[in-house]
Amino acid sequence: MKEIGIGMIGYKFMGKAHSHAYKDLNMFFPDAPVPKMNVICGRNEEGVRQAQRQFGWDNYATDWRQLLDRDDIDLIDINAPSDAHKEIALAAAASKKHLFCEKPLALSLADAREMLDAAEKHGVKHMVGFNYRFAPAVQLAKKLVDEGRLGKIYHFRAWFLQDWILDPSFPLVWRLQKEVAGSGSHGDLGAHIIDLAHFLIGDMTEVIGMNETFVKERPIPSAMTGLSAKSSDSSAKGPVTVDDATLFMSRFACGALGSFEATRFAAGHRCTNSFEINGSKGSVKFDFERMNELQVYFTDDAEDVQGFRRVVATDPAHAYMDAWWPAGHTIGYEHTFIHEVLELMHALEEDRQPVPNFADGVKCQQVLEAVDLSIAERRWVSVNEL
Amino acid sequence: MKEIGIGMIGYKFMGKAHSHAYKDLNMFFPDAPVPKMNVICGRNEEGVRQAQRQFGWDNYATDWRQLLDRDDIDLIDINAPSDAHKEIALAAAASKKHLFCEKPLALSLADAREMLDAAEKHGVKHMVGFNYRFAPAVQLAKKLVDEGRLGKIYHFRAWFLQDWILDPSFPLVWRLQKEVAGSGSHGDLGAHIIDLAHFLIGDMTEVIGMNETFVKERPIPSAMTGLSAKSSDSSAKGPVTVDDATLFMSRFACGALGSFEATRFAAGHRCTNSFEINGSKGSVKFDFERMNELQVYFTDDAEDVQGFRRVVATDPAHAYMDAWWPAGHTIGYEHTFIHEVLELMHALEEDRQPVPNFADGVKCQQVLEAVDLSIAERRWVSVNEL
Amino acid sequence: MKEIGIGMIGYKFMGKAHSHAYKDLNMFFPDAPVPKMNVICGRNEEGVRQAQRQFGWDNYATDWRQLLDRDDIDLIDINAPSDAHKEIALAAAASKKHLFCEKPLALSLADAREMLDAAEKHGVKHMVGFNYRFAPAVQLAKKLVDEGRLGKIYHFRAWFLQDWILDPSFPLVWRLQKEVAGSGSHGDLGAHIIDLAHFLIGDMTEVIGMNETFVKERPIPSAMTGLSAKSSDSSAKGPVTVDDATLFMSRFACGALGSFEATRFAAGHRCTNSFEINGSKGSVKFDFERMNELQVYFTDDAEDVQGFRRVVATDPAHAYMDAWWPAGHTIGYEHTFIHEVLELMHALEEDRQPVPNFADGVKCQQVLEAVDLSIAERRWVSVNEL
Amino acid sequence: MKEIGIGMIGYKFMGKAHSHAYKDLNMFFPDAPVPKMNVICGRNEEGVRQAQRQFGWDNYATDWRQLLDRDDIDLIDINAPSDAHKEIALAAAASKKHLFCEKPLALSLADAREMLDAAEKHGVKHMVGFNYRFAPAVQLAKKLVDEGRLGKIYHFRAWFLQDWILDPSFPLVWRLQKEVAGSGSHGDLGAHIIDLAHFLIGDMTEVIGMNETFVKERPIPSAMTGLSAKSSDSSAKGPVTVDDATLFMSRFACGALGSFEATRFAAGHRCTNSFEINGSKGSVKFDFERMNELQVYFTDDAEDVQGFRRVVATDPAHAYMDAWWPAGHTIGYEHTFIHEVLELMHALEEDRQPVPNFADGVKCQQVLEAVDLSIAERRWVSVNEL
Repeated sequence: MKEIGIGMIGYKFMGKAHSHAYKDLNMFFPDAPVPKMNVICGRNEEGVRQAQRQFGWDNYATDWRQLLDRDDIDLIDINAPSDAHKEIALAAAASKKHLFCEKPLALSLADAREMLDAAEKHGVKHMVGFNYRFAPAVQLAKKLVDEGRLGKIYHFRAWFLQDWILDPSFPLVWRLQKEVAGSGSHGDLGAHIIDLAHFLIGDMTEVIGMNETFVKERPIPSAMTGLSAKSSDSSAKGPVTVDDATLFMSRFACGALGSFEATRFAAGHRCTNSFEINGSKGSVKFDFERMNELQVYFTDDAEDVQGFRRVVATDPAHAYMDAWWPAGHTIGYEHTFIHEVLELMHALEEDRQPVPNFADGVKCQQVLEAVDLSIAERRWVSVNEL
Repeated sequence: MKEIGIGMIGYKFMGKAHSHAYKDLNMFFPDAPVPKMNVICGRNEEGVRQAQRQFGWDNYATDWRQLLDRDDIDLIDINAPSDAHKEIALAAAASKKHLFCEKPLALSLADAREMLDAAEKHGVKHMVGFNYRFAPAVQLAKKLVDEGRLGKIYHFRAWFLQDWILDPSFPLVWRLQKEVAGSGSHGDLGAHIIDLAHFLIGDMTEVIGMNETFVKERPIPSAMTGLSAKSSDSSAKGPVTVDDATLFMSRFACGALGSFEATRFAAGHRCTNSFEINGSKGSVKFDFERMNELQVYFTDDAEDVQGFRRVVATDPAHAYMDAWWPAGHTIGYEHTFIHEVLELMHALEEDRQPVPNFADGVKCQQVLEAVDLSIAERRWVSVNEL
Repeated sequence: MKEIGIGMIGYKFMGKAHSHAYKDLNMFFPDAPVPKMNVICGRNEEGVRQAQRQFGWDNYATDWRQLLDRDDIDLIDINAPSDAHKEIALAAAASKKHLFCEKPLALSLADAREMLDAAEKHGVKHMVGFNYRFAPAVQLAKKLVDEGRLGKIYHFRAWFLQDWILDPSFPLVWRLQKEVAGSGSHGDLGAHIIDLAHFLIGDMTEVIGMNETFVKERPIPSAMTGLSAKSSDSSAKGPVTVDDATLFMSRFACGALGSFEATRFAAGHRCTNSFEINGSKGSVKFDFERMNELQVYFTDDAEDVQGFRRVVATDPAHAYMDAWWPAGHTIGYEHTFIHEVLELMHALEEDRQPVPNFADGVKCQQVLEAVDLSIAERRWVSVNEL
Repeated sequence: MKEIGIGMIGYKFMGKAHSHAYKDLNMFFPDAPVPKMNVICGRNEEGVRQAQRQFGWDNYATDWRQLLDRDDIDLIDINAPSDAHKEIALAAAASKKHLFCEKPLALSLADAREMLDAAEKHGVKHMVGFNYRFAPAVQLAKKLVDEGRLGKIYHFRAWFLQDWILDPSFPLVWRLQKEVAGSGSHGDLGAHIIDLAHFLIGDMTEVIGMNETFVKERPIPSAMTGLSAKSSDSSAKGPVTVDDATLFMSRFACGALGSFEATRFAAGHRCTNSFEINGSKGSVKFDFERMNELQVYFTDDAEDVQGFRRVVATDPAHAYMDAWWPAGHTIGYEHTFIHEVLELMHALEEDRQPVPNFADGVKCQQVLEAVDLSIAERRWVSVNEL
């Protein structure tokens, strides 16, 4: 069985999700190459040591450059904060390491392109972490589109709604600072639904957006961990420099009309990552809070029993599910990462590019920036302008 | 256009629902015979006069016997309290009036049978008010069963859940008194789901039940109106003499297993009249709180898109719906009565028995009493024992 | 009891809905003034005679001008095709008749304003037929917003999805011809959700839209009736001159971001008229296909039981519902018109303007045209430009 | 950190679920004692060797008796077929090994009691595998009951619906043979909902049931694996000796009425493990196919916003969830086992009995047999009779 040596940079939310995926992969997909959890890397030694033990890595490091010289590392997994992605990726590619980078690929389209170019130049494989593609219900949607079972696509609408910063006293964590996060809801949540649109129905040609920062100042936190942070009542305040919400409309190359909304101000929505596709022969609806389900409608059902079907995508007929539990036994968020890593391992074994890869990351970044430009200039922007 | 002269006895909840049905029928079903709203009858003159004006009847009466002598009355509509049904029906049949009686047909099986016998002896038409049959989504369920599209039926489960007497301070209204109401949840709610079972999958052969009166004493109301009543804090209390909840299991002649529950103690359920049928080729689910919808599942759907379809039964392909609004424009509770009256008018025009008729009322009463007997004697009771 | 003499022009879909509302109003709202169904008017004598009998009007006419001279007519109800609204309204106002006009008020903003001006000049009352406001669940949403129970509003998103012209062989009915209908999905469906936005959270300041006609030619029908029409296979084709779908984004005066979509190409959606409002203290969601329900979320619910509540708005605590049936017994589409007419009758009795009135119709038209302008000029348009 | 040496007997469906739980436990619950995956045992050497490697065990064995002598084994995990439970448990207890046994504890109540007695006599800890208790949404239901937030409980209804043997050509696997499985739907599915009832609202006092085997003969399979098996068309047939469906009613010590149904003949239901509890102050509803959700209703909500709340039990306020992902990121079936093992490890560390333990297994078996007796004798059976 082929083994792939992994060096992972970052050990917080995504670091945990990736580690778990490596750890569990071969128990459920025994024929996949084995990801060897060699080195986990983080700047804070205490933190990374604890993560090493807890997540099951063989070694840890505090300087990511150390990983590039090791022969036992074939792949660099980059899930450090977004502002560090580019430097690491360029160096790793130069060291002939394959790349697995969390989204957003970079803080700018230019950087993303530079990363893609570097990966191509050095002939390494590259993957970007759009994990939601790997929910079996999303795979089913893709299959229905690809097989023509929804016909010609007219509409794609998607919204990613959260509410974790609704409280104005929630502190100014790094995700609310442009210089670290690059973007707010747009880059964090919007990126996912843009990628799903690309995955499911193809490229967009033009966009126009709007955004807003509803709460313009927030308490500066004394300490930050992951998504959460504490602030005292006496905290000084600092400016929120990213968008709280971004909406945009688009046209797709296939002729469909697109509608997108990403917000962290939708009370009651913890993680509503939803899309709907309407075609000439049918429609599908997905909501990540019920990630095992796809609502499916066909126009050619018998006249008296037409209706959206609630397909619980846990049957053997659904992607990945024969590796898990009997039908009706659902899986969760973390499984999307296992399937993602499965694709990555198989691609490396087969010496092909994994999907989605940096080209998909670039394409997503291109739309993100096209939307930002359309907001800045209050006009429709062709995606090809960028 | 044929006209049918109506004399209606009772003017409360059901009296209003029936009046409305007569009033609206021909606007939406212009080819149906015309129910002439001749006389409405009630014991309280002030009350019945107001109802006459409000509901649109030509005349009123305070003694129901007066209706039997009138030539302009072809049909007696009986929706007075249950303890009055039998006497009226027997007299009306003897006067050669057709009969439309609300459920429960009578306070006992013996009485119900006497009513059926009288109607048959005098050769009059007779209908019983199981209105839920007439929801288009229920009609669709029936159609799917009859056409064999669900295959052999294995399971029928139904529950009618309400919560209007959950509060122990809710007063002792007539529906909680055995001598007037005959029965509690069992006869009021259970009767409906028993009838739906008969309608949808046929006869039961044996039953066993259990029941309970959770709140055994309630304040005696100073005044009662319809379902509601007021009681003062200083009210004396009286015993509740009917069941708050009745459950039973049954076997059907077709081989299916039945499960039934009727309760007024299900917090959060205002009117959850639900059933599910599981067959060898498919299943259906219905909930009256979403009465325009039927959930439908077929085992022969393609492997990757099997799931319950949410059929909104408002298309032209669904019973009655071409008479109403465009697809997707829903109808409500009162429409079940309009469809019921449509069947009644057509049956009278065509000189045939309407369905459901007193035979269905008797059959329902037979099951109700079989269940009561099974509770009293703590044993399985064959429906044919009664 | 006060009586209001009605003359109604138009007798198709809306004519039926209005007639029914007049007919049923006082049965359920006996204290409301009585709408006297005096004259129904239509150009086709056979058709209008049948409607007169079927809907219960005392007289019929084929020339709407005849209605203006009658003393027994206080109110002119205009539900003729949209291109006839203005001429009738101006003449009726000049004749001192009160006005009840279906939406869209007119084919253009200029016309709509002229109608409002005329009504004001002649001192008559005027109402516009935005019936969806009158669903009890929508009224509940309004109440929650007005009482501050949702806090500051951040997001309003709405979509009105239908699928009745999805089939390219569906014929070129009048609703698909700009000169008669004025607009396609935008004016037909979009108008309703724009009005709901105005009703629920107030005015918009700027908009930008996009639209598409997916099927550009359709068979010319041999005969048209209401929404449906027949075409033979050999039918000649004509151009569809209205939009199949229109989307737009907006900003509200209250600071909220808006997202709107109206389409007739959403397979599986017969009549999905939906909106969601997200505020700082809570959210609500509505879907007309389940019109008796409102999903409600409050941020101040106890931490462990936060979630969208499925409120079945049929309790006595909900608008209008004490006039109907016991809790849990749902109502349907046509009831929105009864409540609308209730408002109209009460307003006339109380000598005040009904709500919504022509000013609301103008405001809606203003947004519709602002969106159209934004599409034509591919730019954000301030609503005040128009 | 304390370590617990594990020896596990069985390596199929449950063996995989348990192995995964041991494997993942400390990654998400780093403070829990460490389950050392020492030896996995199965009769088929090839099979168990593969499982050893795939699941991550240090050693394997083919004779379970070998495990009892090992000093590095503190706990015997028994998930072999049900007919082997007793012998292993008795021997293991005698060897002073703690016990973790899958449900059903044994093939008979007598055997189950013997197992409990042995465990108590030898002073070992014992757990039984009722994993569904450990879904966070189920834990929330338990919390609401225990804190009195649902008030006095009136109704408990539960159904466990599957459809995997609906096809009559599905072969005669071991789960359909009484001598191996002990029972059909009743022991397999019914056992789970009986245990949930015990967990949530306490003991039952009397029961009456009914059951059926709809398909009485099935093809004898050539080979069996887990839940699935293949049969050729020419297969000989053998008798199905267990129930396809079992229903029963019950009374609870707390005064509630119970209704239970377990079936493998409910088309469209892959794994609908559902319950509803109605109390004087509120209700809850659960469906395992949406295992992250609990529907919750409170009678003391404001009058105009009463409704079932869809609580997505993934907030930090919900049991276990602070160990997983951010709010709204759901978990799946396998997580119930991780939580179960967490309880087991903590109990061993704290030198207390885990919950649920063999006493719960006995209690469940007692109800199962009481139901079977009630079916055999067609009468109500007091649980204490057994």
